Amino acid sequence: MKLAVDGMGGDHAPKSVIDGVLRALNEFPDLEVQLYGNKDTMRPFLTAHDRMQVIHCEEVITNDDDAARAVRRKKDSSMAKMLEAVKTGEAHACLSAGSTGALMAGGLFQVGRIAGVERPALATTLPTLDGQGFLMLDLGATADAKPEYLLQYAIMGVIYAREVRGIQNPTVGLLNIGTEDKKGNELTKAVFDLLKASDVNFVGNVESRDLLTGVADVVVTDGFTGNMVLKTIEGTAGIMFKMLKEGFMSSMKTKMAAAMMKPQLKTIKDKMDYTEYGGAALFGLQAPVIKAHGSSNATAIFSAIKQCDLMVRHNVCPTIEKTIQA
Amino acid sequence: MKLAVDGMGGDHAPKSVIDGVLRALNEFPDLEVQLYGNKDTMRPFLTAHDRMQVIHCEEVITNDDDAARAVRRKKDSSMAKMLEAVKTGEAHACLSAGSTGALMAGGLFQVGRIAGVERPALATTLPTLDGQGFLMLDLGATADAKPEYLLQYAIMGVIYAREVRGIQNPTVGLLNIGTEDKKGNELTKAVFDLLKASDVNFVGNVESRDLLTGVADVVVTDGFTGNMVLKTIEGTAGIMFKMLKEGFMSSMKTKMAAAMMKPQLKTIKDKMDYTEYGGAALFGLQAPVIKAHGSSNATAIFSAIKQCDLMVRHNVCPTIEKTIQA
Repeated sequence: MKLAVDGMGGDHAPKSVIDGVLRALNEFPDLEVQLYGNKDTMRPFLTAHDRMQVIHCEEVITNDDDAARAVRRKKDSSMAKMLEAVKTGEAHACLSAGSTGALMAGGLFQVGRIAGVERPALATTLPTLDGQGFLMLDLGATADAKPEYLLQYAIMGVIYAREVRGIQNPTVGLLNIGTEDKKGNELTKAVFDLLKASDVNFVGNVESRDLLTGVADVVVTDGFTGNMVLKTIEGTAGIMFKMLKEGFMSSMKTKMAAAMMKPQLKTIKDKMDYTEYGGAALFGLQAPVIKAHGSSNATAIFSAIKQCDLMVRHNVCPTIEKTIQA
Repeated sequence: MKLAVDGMGGDHAPKSVIDGVLRALNEFPDLEVQLYGNKDTMRPFLTAHDRMQVIHCEEVITNDDDAARAVRRKKDSSMAKMLEAVKTGEAHACLSAGSTGALMAGGLFQVGRIAGVERPALATTLPTLDGQGFLMLDLGATADAKPEYLLQYAIMGVIYAREVRGIQNPTVGLLNIGTEDKKGNELTKAVFDLLKASDVNFVGNVESRDLLTGVADVVVTDGFTGNMVLKTIEGTAGIMFKMLKEGFMSSMKTKMAAAMMKPQLKTIKDKMDYTEYGGAALFGLQAPVIKAHGSSNATAIFSAIKQCDLMVRHNVCPTIEKTIQA
């Protein structure tokens, strides 16, 4: 698999990106990487590898750039070059831990939508108590959704869950404000009927309260709600970790307690850390475009590369195309 | 203040309701309570009080009842009787820890909307790190909102924050998927412009990720999103407490750590427990209709009664009426 990587994106770039890439090259003998970025900035972290090609780019897209136009304006940026490699066929997939907005806009513009897909959707695997995780989409690619979009999100999500996560007949839940059939706003009521009438293994409405206990393999929602829920989970978990840390640091006694609970606290942190499941994928484009979390470390980059590899190897994009157009 | 109380609503009713009522009667010398419920069920927990009148009701509304029709169908239920007392003017406000849906539908039907208020909104005070909390609305009274509704939510929220929470010039934030001015879906973009042009102390868009760190005194959103975010906070905090408990229970060593961290863990639990701030209020009705959390203990009921008292004493409903109609 030929993968184009944005070496400059993310809070810990380029180090964590390069470390993750090198680890993946060692584990996947078929992987070939095109690493885009500023050679001077990347040099201290680079080790030569015969399956890694380093391509110098002068520019970097930051979160301060206007997301919608960034890729078009900074044509020599690592992200734009990476997307172009997918467009021209030099790479099968691409990966960046940089600006989500720029990657979404650029992915749509450069890589392009699969014919028949109404809107692309941003999807990620979120943690559950049992460690299985579930796929949620859309997380914010499209703010205003129509019912048909969510039906397509479900179809795309099922293909991903089956091909990449190896789930035989993935269940699909509709995120809603109640589990009863007639609950919801105009959008979810209409989507409920569409999903009910479709071929997907629809288990009905699911509530945001129950998401992390695991209620369905794939949960569909509009991009506004999905983004809101994702950020609420992050914010709530973050606040609780912060309060716990303050509590554990408050005296000698609690510091001892922290030492005694260290392995268990690490387990909780790892469980809540959804970057372990890979990055967020932009579904509905002609090739996998993966967004690793901005705070990605080498392990998260490695997981995201593994995800790209599975998506390419299992023909996720061609299967979506075939299914949507059927 | 004359308060009508549903003695039968909530997971720990009637005990926790009665305990909370008795505590409030002791603390507030002006409080008179009409307690509605099944006398036989309530008797073991009752202590006579000269400012408490107990009114027997045969029926109880449960979560299994059809929320929209429950109050109309079960006319002799504690909730229906309680709402009727407000309607006839026998009580100034009412309080129930029973079915939210039934209380919302019954409140609208029996107590009625203030003329000029487009839609009632469910509001509650949620916790923040600094212990101040913030008011969020709508939490689910109206699933499909129009921009004008959210402007009214802001106006009502500001009056409540000022009169009940004692905040001089409350700040208002619009819950959105980004903090930038142009972010959002069609609804939030339109609301942004309305709030910008209004008299409220609007601080712009706020993200769900930052809510619990305290970003505004009043946060407005549509009922679908508000309900989703509220339940996500509850679900995420619940899962984390569950994982923590499992961690602390896993060995002798971690059990010792739990004992050493007990006061700090209690502080975290208390901070996240928003029932301490009172119940959820249905704004836009002609009198305060308060919904205490289903899992309310006596303290939560007491807090909710205090909230009713403040709302009546500070003329929240008449002020909303005057402001909306101005």
